[in-house]
Amino acid sequence: MEQRVSLITLGALDVQKSTEFYEKMGWEKKEFDSDSISFFQLNGQLLGIYSFELLLEDSGRTGNIAGSGGISLGYNTRSEAEVAEILTAAEKAGGTITMKPSRKPWGSLTGYFADPDGHSWEVSWMEVLAPNDKGDVSW
Amino acid sequence: MEQRVSLITLGALDVQKSTEFYEKMGWEKKEFDSDSISFFQLNGQLLGIYSFELLLEDSGRTGNIAGSGGISLGYNTRSEAEVAEILTAAEKAGGTITMKPSRKPWGSLTGYFADPDGHSWEVSWMEVLAPNDKGDVSW
Repeated sequence: MEQRVSLITLGALDVQKSTEFYEKMGWEKKEFDSDSISFFQLNGQLLGIYSFELLLEDSGRTGNIAGSGGISLGYNTRSEAEVAEILTAAEKAGGTITMKPSRKPWGSLTGYFADPDGHSWEVSWMEVLAPNDKGDVSW
Repeated sequence: MEQRVSLITLGALDVQKSTEFYEKMGWEKKEFDSDSISFFQLNGQLLGIYSFELLLEDSGRTGNIAGSGGISLGYNTRSEAEVAEILTAAEKAGGTITMKPSRKPWGSLTGYFADPDGHSWEVSWMEVLAPNDKGDVSW
């Protein structure tokens, strides 16, 4: 198994509402005609917003998975100021700031927001982990 | 907010055990001295295996997030046969096959496994979504 990820799927209680959240954050969704899923092209991956119910069904899982917080997606910024800007934008778009920015022991400035379904996004500024021109982060 | 992801963090009940799962899948972890987190370099992202407890603390969250299944990570293969091979390898490495491969309405051959913490991986073969030489998937 090669060391890579092709798709990130976020379960959503209301796919349209959750899709609109990311559009409000400045993302452009793929042209795709479906009520149960929408797609965004990421750097090398696709991100899908997909109905929780169908995700459970597809993957043979049971249980309530809304707002689990079990996976956190990281977004590394290009400047320190951008951390607070993005958290504010997330709140305006319908998300929730769960942790205000603070200086971490490893030197980053980091805060967290939750999207409308409770999925965690870590927003961080750390010079050595700043994205390259393509938006990729490597180390 | 640019349309990209920098880091994928998987909460783990036992970081060492979960790290070993991915090593058994053929991944090579970063040299990094920590009991609470380990890193893998992905295509443009890092993946971190991180203690559930600390992830909750860092992100200002509460609750039991083990085995949530709330986010599914996708792995697109380079051949049809590889789907079953990877599910088998996952089971051998300590994971669980939650859905055997089947032909989906959209043409893919898709199965699911859960890692030791219950995180879902979708393993799919679909020619038009096969990864490029770099391992990236685009559309």
